[in-house]
Amino acid sequence: MFRNQYDSDVTVWSPQGRLHQVEYAMEAVKLGTATVGLKNRETAVLVALCKPTSELSASQRKIIPIDDHLGISIAGITADARVLSRYLRSECLNYKHSYDSTYPVSRLITNLGNKMQTTTQRYDRRPYGVGLLVAGYDENGPHIYQVTPSATFYNCKANSIGSRSQSARTYLERNLGTFLDSSNDDIICHGILAILGSLPTDEHQSKENAAQFNITVAIVGKNQPFKILSEEENEKYLRMAKEKGAPVDPPRNDDDDDRPSPPDQPEAGPRDPEVLVATEQRP
Amino acid sequence: MFRNQYDSDVTVWSPQGRLHQVEYAMEAVKLGTATVGLKNRETAVLVALCKPTSELSASQRKIIPIDDHLGISIAGITADARVLSRYLRSECLNYKHSYDSTYPVSRLITNLGNKMQTTTQRYDRRPYGVGLLVAGYDENGPHIYQVTPSATFYNCKANSIGSRSQSARTYLERNLGTFLDSSNDDIICHGILAILGSLPTDEHQSKENAAQFNITVAIVGKNQPFKILSEEENEKYLRMAKEKGAPVDPPRNDDDDDRPSPPDQPEAGPRDPEVLVATEQRP
Amino acid sequence: MFRNQYDSDVTVWSPQGRLHQVEYAMEAVKLGTATVGLKNRETAVLVALCKPTSELSASQRKIIPIDDHLGISIAGITADARVLSRYLRSECLNYKHSYDSTYPVSRLITNLGNKMQTTTQRYDRRPYGVGLLVAGYDENGPHIYQVTPSATFYNCKANSIGSRSQSARTYLERNLGTFLDSSNDDIICHGILAILGSLPTDEHQSKENAAQFNITVAIVGKNQPFKILSEEENEKYLRMAKEKGAPVDPPRNDDDDDRPSPPDQPEAGPRDPEVLVATEQRP
Amino acid sequence: MFRNQYDSDVTVWSPQGRLHQVEYAMEAVKLGTATVGLKNRETAVLVALCKPTSELSASQRKIIPIDDHLGISIAGITADARVLSRYLRSECLNYKHSYDSTYPVSRLITNLGNKMQTTTQRYDRRPYGVGLLVAGYDENGPHIYQVTPSATFYNCKANSIGSRSQSARTYLERNLGTFLDSSNDDIICHGILAILGSLPTDEHQSKENAAQFNITVAIVGKNQPFKILSEEENEKYLRMAKEKGAPVDPPRNDDDDDRPSPPDQPEAGPRDPEVLVATEQRP
Amino acid sequence: MFRNQYDSDVTVWSPQGRLHQVEYAMEAVKLGTATVGLKNRETAVLVALCKPTSELSASQRKIIPIDDHLGISIAGITADARVLSRYLRSECLNYKHSYDSTYPVSRLITNLGNKMQTTTQRYDRRPYGVGLLVAGYDENGPHIYQVTPSATFYNCKANSIGSRSQSARTYLERNLGTFLDSSNDDIICHGILAILGSLPTDEHQSKENAAQFNITVAIVGKNQPFKILSEEENEKYLRMAKEKGAPVDPPRNDDDDDRPSPPDQPEAGPRDPEVLVATEQRP
Amino acid sequence: MFRNQYDSDVTVWSPQGRLHQVEYAMEAVKLGTATVGLKNRETAVLVALCKPTSELSASQRKIIPIDDHLGISIAGITADARVLSRYLRSECLNYKHSYDSTYPVSRLITNLGNKMQTTTQRYDRRPYGVGLLVAGYDENGPHIYQVTPSATFYNCKANSIGSRSQSARTYLERNLGTFLDSSNDDIICHGILAILGSLPTDEHQSKENAAQFNITVAIVGKNQPFKILSEEENEKYLRMAKEKGAPVDPPRNDDDDDRPSPPDQPEAGPRDPEVLVATEQRP
Amino acid sequence: MFRNQYDSDVTVWSPQGRLHQVEYAMEAVKLGTATVGLKNRETAVLVALCKPTSELSASQRKIIPIDDHLGISIAGITADARVLSRYLRSECLNYKHSYDSTYPVSRLITNLGNKMQTTTQRYDRRPYGVGLLVAGYDENGPHIYQVTPSATFYNCKANSIGSRSQSARTYLERNLGTFLDSSNDDIICHGILAILGSLPTDEHQSKENAAQFNITVAIVGKNQPFKILSEEENEKYLRMAKEKGAPVDPPRNDDDDDRPSPPDQPEAGPRDPEVLVATEQRP
Repeated sequence: MFRNQYDSDVTVWSPQGRLHQVEYAMEAVKLGTATVGLKNRETAVLVALCKPTSELSASQRKIIPIDDHLGISIAGITADARVLSRYLRSECLNYKHSYDSTYPVSRLITNLGNKMQTTTQRYDRRPYGVGLLVAGYDENGPHIYQVTPSATFYNCKANSIGSRSQSARTYLERNLGTFLDSSNDDIICHGILAILGSLPTDEHQSKENAAQFNITVAIVGKNQPFKILSEEENEKYLRMAKEKGAPVDPPRNDDDDDRPSPPDQPEAGPRDPEVLVATEQRP
Repeated sequence: MFRNQYDSDVTVWSPQGRLHQVEYAMEAVKLGTATVGLKNRETAVLVALCKPTSELSASQRKIIPIDDHLGISIAGITADARVLSRYLRSECLNYKHSYDSTYPVSRLITNLGNKMQTTTQRYDRRPYGVGLLVAGYDENGPHIYQVTPSATFYNCKANSIGSRSQSARTYLERNLGTFLDSSNDDIICHGILAILGSLPTDEHQSKENAAQFNITVAIVGKNQPFKILSEEENEKYLRMAKEKGAPVDPPRNDDDDDRPSPPDQPEAGPRDPEVLVATEQRP
Repeated sequence: MFRNQYDSDVTVWSPQGRLHQVEYAMEAVKLGTATVGLKNRETAVLVALCKPTSELSASQRKIIPIDDHLGISIAGITADARVLSRYLRSECLNYKHSYDSTYPVSRLITNLGNKMQTTTQRYDRRPYGVGLLVAGYDENGPHIYQVTPSATFYNCKANSIGSRSQSARTYLERNLGTFLDSSNDDIICHGILAILGSLPTDEHQSKENAAQFNITVAIVGKNQPFKILSEEENEKYLRMAKEKGAPVDPPRNDDDDDRPSPPDQPEAGPRDPEVLVATEQRP
Repeated sequence: MFRNQYDSDVTVWSPQGRLHQVEYAMEAVKLGTATVGLKNRETAVLVALCKPTSELSASQRKIIPIDDHLGISIAGITADARVLSRYLRSECLNYKHSYDSTYPVSRLITNLGNKMQTTTQRYDRRPYGVGLLVAGYDENGPHIYQVTPSATFYNCKANSIGSRSQSARTYLERNLGTFLDSSNDDIICHGILAILGSLPTDEHQSKENAAQFNITVAIVGKNQPFKILSEEENEKYLRMAKEKGAPVDPPRNDDDDDRPSPPDQPEAGPRDPEVLVATEQRP
Repeated sequence: MFRNQYDSDVTVWSPQGRLHQVEYAMEAVKLGTATVGLKNRETAVLVALCKPTSELSASQRKIIPIDDHLGISIAGITADARVLSRYLRSECLNYKHSYDSTYPVSRLITNLGNKMQTTTQRYDRRPYGVGLLVAGYDENGPHIYQVTPSATFYNCKANSIGSRSQSARTYLERNLGTFLDSSNDDIICHGILAILGSLPTDEHQSKENAAQFNITVAIVGKNQPFKILSEEENEKYLRMAKEKGAPVDPPRNDDDDDRPSPPDQPEAGPRDPEVLVATEQRP
Repeated sequence: MFRNQYDSDVTVWSPQGRLHQVEYAMEAVKLGTATVGLKNRETAVLVALCKPTSELSASQRKIIPIDDHLGISIAGITADARVLSRYLRSECLNYKHSYDSTYPVSRLITNLGNKMQTTTQRYDRRPYGVGLLVAGYDENGPHIYQVTPSATFYNCKANSIGSRSQSARTYLERNLGTFLDSSNDDIICHGILAILGSLPTDEHQSKENAAQFNITVAIVGKNQPFKILSEEENEKYLRMAKEKGAPVDPPRNDDDDDRPSPPDQPEAGPRDPEVLVATEQRP
Repeated sequence: MFRNQYDSDVTVWSPQGRLHQVEYAMEAVKLGTATVGLKNRETAVLVALCKPTSELSASQRKIIPIDDHLGISIAGITADARVLSRYLRSECLNYKHSYDSTYPVSRLITNLGNKMQTTTQRYDRRPYGVGLLVAGYDENGPHIYQVTPSATFYNCKANSIGSRSQSARTYLERNLGTFLDSSNDDIICHGILAILGSLPTDEHQSKENAAQFNITVAIVGKNQPFKILSEEENEKYLRMAKEKGAPVDPPRNDDDDDRPSPPDQPEAGPRDPEVLVATEQRP
């Protein structure tokens, strides 16, 4: 295959102006379980699907608290996420120490992006293999940011990343209009319903409670410091969500995820190259 | 293909005296959405076409304010652009602190170019994968500069970079004579009409308002600090532009962009090598 | 084989978003002899199978004391484990010196993971080739952590790593419900029975006492500083365990270990990529 | 082709004792538009052919002022030239500051050459891809120096570098005897006529004034600080030159440039290896 | 051969979780002449077989004194051993200076192992190509340690490394039970008999005295500083040993050395990977 | 060709114990024009053949003054020579400053050789591609040294390096006996006659005066600071030399230069490897 | 050839545990002319065969004085030897300065070996390509040491290295018994006769005096500072040696040198790997 001649090193451009190693790192995000972020006027919510590697160990933490006003949920290489969250935590601490106030979310994410950018331009490092959904609250209200291995970030109304997250995104898009004015309970339910859509149908039907689904929920907002909900609360919201409505139909092709239309189709129009993720290599 | 033996590293010259990795980086500019810059006697204007990656997230910012007298619009790798804009911002801040005046635009761009040049000569970095249009105003009046991944910059009367930007450039060239004496409203309309020309025809016809086109407009000039226009202003100018005239016909070949004539044709005459961008590799 | 083009360097992503060198390092864990960790409400226990390289030398130490409240057992490259244990020991010492208290276990393991992560992202190092089971006790009670070469760690109820450890894990899973309320003697016996299950049947039957099996046992808990049991105690517990019950049947395929279901099967659902260990390369 | 085994790295000698990467860098000079330098007893003149990349942008500056007594014109990678001119400028400034006099030209060029030499011997850099003609005036009178990517420089009576510069050199050689005693007006005309000879015939005939030819002229000499002439002056001299005489016939083979005779022909005699520029690789 | 794709660099893992370069370094140990270490209750003894490269030069020193309480004998690259012994010597000196007591043997060897480990994980170094037998005496009594190029060390009752050392190990294993209560004279004789077994039969029979066999003996123990015996003492003990008994029969296959059973045989059970030394590559 | 597997890097030995990259660098010396050095009892003389690259530029300086008592003539990469001469000049200056006397020639050349040696042993540099003839005078009388890219130097009675220098050496060898007692005028004539022998016959006959031959002569000795002769003096000595005698016949094979007998012929006896210059690769 | 896969880098082990690059460097020693070292009870002597590269230059110095009590003779890369001798000289100077006594020979050589060892273990350097014979005198009497590129050294009674040195070694071995009690004149004669044996027979017979043979002799001992003998003394001893006896017959195969028996023959027994010099690659 011709294109592989240019994918050995993050400092090598392909003749088409692409950085294949950065694109491959973005594939690592799709290997992690799905996570969802969404918000109403005053609150941002993260819902993550965890999968214990076996009955013996607790689930990997997919949602990581950073500061009172901020937390992240992750998909991809856990160890990379931990290193990034250590950076975020120490930035928040220093900011609080210097200015005695919380770090504005967009500025913090900009700095994170700049830190991640260096791994996409230097030969001695690999790009981080993890995607983040950031839920934060500051004087501009609640925020959901998506951060990718290409060091790009997006200010989102709602979003989902990880394995089979396309189903979750489809759910979010269909219900996008209702989020802003929903109650906190409602957007948590929306988040749960969105993420249930990313489960295979059989798995979906054979499970009964939140612990079996391994759903984690976190919330941050006005007068609400970042908090990961307890098992009991998870159970409560799962029940509430199931009463509210069935999840959307899973898409026919489980493997199809981030792209509504392949970038090679001419009508799709131009996009920034960092989101054109290696689609033609699929079988 | 013979020539590919020399394109693995930015420090390797081809036998023809070319740096293929630098040329490939310039291809990344064409993967971004188009942006246009133009100016009259006292004002410089940037118009950028943004494309949200989905309904869920806000558009990527294609226009980035740097200082009161300067802003940039970008095409290519967003994360690279962000790192460069951080550099520009901190340069302006330091200059203001030291001299209590605004950084002369051409001098600032020269320093930016020197910073970018190092990534084209050292083995441990890749060239930046982003093109910039800079709009600035200083005591010499308004300026539009184009900066390329090869670390070259051009002082422009008007210009456009990015995907299908050739159509926009054709529009600008046809109307170049009228810009200098146009009103601010007029050059904004010219900018919008130029960029609409870079849209595929069907997309062009099926959309109604500025939000659907995702156009961002910024302006800087005499007594006018750099400002990104509001959605309402965008809407106003889009209507004004549509009344003013239809965009130019799109070129027959959507893919043809930066070069009016291929550099291989002998009558084209010599050009500096950094603008001979890998044309023979096209299908 | 196609996939091998991306496994030469820890800084190279495969097109599927995997880091093959990290996955290969995880195979080194399976080349070491098995070790087991488990806990009740107040005590954590490690049981390790050592194998002398010959009659002439003492067994390699598979269990390494770190501090009064913490110890590790290892599977994989011994020299790598020693370097990591030196790090842990010096961290504990510094903490005690600074705060006059014991290092909280989860925080210590997080720091260890961050240290190990750097070897998975930089070109000048290889990932550590050793897996750890950590047994510790702090104000939150007893802990068993599993740490892998991918720099991921898992908070476990019980676990086993190393060669043929799948049999041990099967035993642990079957008896998981009884551990929390068992006596210390009982969980030690459970640990011994679990690890005996990882021995080939013939070896299992032909041996009589603990020294022949080369079992090492360590214990840490409330009012019980980390202690490696004496030969006599080993003998006592081995006898006690044998009276208690036969080990589980060994799995039919000795080679099958860490994965209950191959990751390639679609119904297995998504998992974090660091645990998808190179299974398709098996003969 | 056998010889290409030794051209991947500037630190690798070919079995014939050549540095192919340095030779390839010299090819970059020929990709730039031509420039001419010449002098009489008291004045040195630079004439450069610029080509705007499109109507939209101003021409790239091919002549760069360094100090009151010195300026350069360039052919090749513009960004590399800018970095070298920054070096020259800061050297001149420091010298003036330390000794309160102008930097002797030959000494300045020697230091520039030593700086450039390091890029031809170290593995982590590529040779600069730009040729310079330096026009300066000091107590020894006016000087024209040629500086090449191989870090060699030549003290010249007159010279021309860049695309199709062979025609210009032929013109200069034919008229070399008359320069020293010419007036300033005359040598400027000679410079213009020489460079017009490097244009293709058709382009030559179809253009009328200096702006169309994009000629830039600079002058430095006794009591004449380095100055780039205005558009009006260019126009005046172009008219004056056209009256004076037609340019020389262009050589039959446009591609033939730096070498009157190929270095492989035995009668050509020995030359320093840095000027044996890769001729046998031509089609 | 498939496996060789992963043996070019010490930082590259094979898909089976092995570090081939470390394993190859261990082969260097087998290229050196054999050496034996053993101990009784109060004394540790080293016996080494030296081979002069010719009559002209003295034998290479195979036993190197480190401190009053410690010495080493080596097999492999002499220059590497010398560098390691310089490290050991300076460690002992510093310890004595700081604490006014002798360096505990196990702690010294742990530090040596950590120093050696770095060469097995970093790309800019190769693993040391030498194996050591360490004989030391401290408050815990006499010690024999084996240190390998993989940075692993073993606390031994007795051991032998180097060319054809399997015969010596067989002798040691057969007589292991008697060592602890032997007199000093007896264990020296055992050491000599063990090492004679590693000689080819014909060479064994054709020689008469210690100088011809080139045996060196060293001793350290309670009230006995580390001492290399004189030629006369060697002669005395050689005679004493020959009277005591013939060496064991050499194994049928001279080439077979470190491994009683090949690691590929499933019944051998798991072992730490650093001792699985490249056996399948043998002819 | 087998041998080329070992010539990619100056740090790689060939199986025959040769450093091909160093040998290739020595070929660069033969690509430069010839230069000759010789001496009588009180004076050392350098004669160099320069070749202007065209009529437009002055000749490259082939003889470079270093200090009052020392100068060099060069063959090979001019830029490398300039860097070495800068080193020599600064060494002489520092010595004069410290000891108020001239730097003894042999000691200076030893230091130069040590500086050059590092480029033959480290991977990040290439060997210098230039040969030097050094003419100096100190309290031990006049000296001619030859310095090669391999960092070796030779104390010579007379010598010649560069293209076709074998003819010059043949002349020098034939007349070696007469130099020591010749007058200064005579040895200058000998030097000129020697170097004329390195010209092709036709070129030799078709030229009339020194400027046409482009001969440069330098002299240093007792009470004679290092001086490059003027054009007039060159003319005078050329006439004097032509009267004195015709140059030696050029050798039949122009290409044959440094080696009287190929090193592969067994009767040639052993030589230091740095002078065995890649002869078998010739066509 | 299979083995060549592991000989590209000094940090790469072959599967057989060998460092081919170190072995290749040892071949460089055999490319130099032979040198001999020997001693009696109070004096050490070096005899070296020098070969001028042509009549024009003096012989390369093969014997280098280091200090009053020490000197070396070399075979191999001269420039490498010079760098090592500079190290030795500065070590001796510092020692004298610190302790006001001469540096003990064995300790100095140990430090030299450690310095050389680093070039055999690090990727950024090549091993030194020179062998040394060291003649020194200290309170333990006279010493002859051999130092090899592998950083190994041997304490010798007498030895010879370099091209065809096997003949010289054969002579030395035959007369080894008589050296210790010989007079100084006698061992000088033995050294000369030994080295004459390394000459081809025809060359041997056709020469008459020491200058023709280019023999250099140096001596150091009790009350005899290191001294290189004068031409007259060489002549005297050559005559004396010729009267004393004819040199030994040259071995039938001139190429056979360092090894009495090939290391592949099983009866040769084990040797340290650094002396197994690449013999199987011979034709």
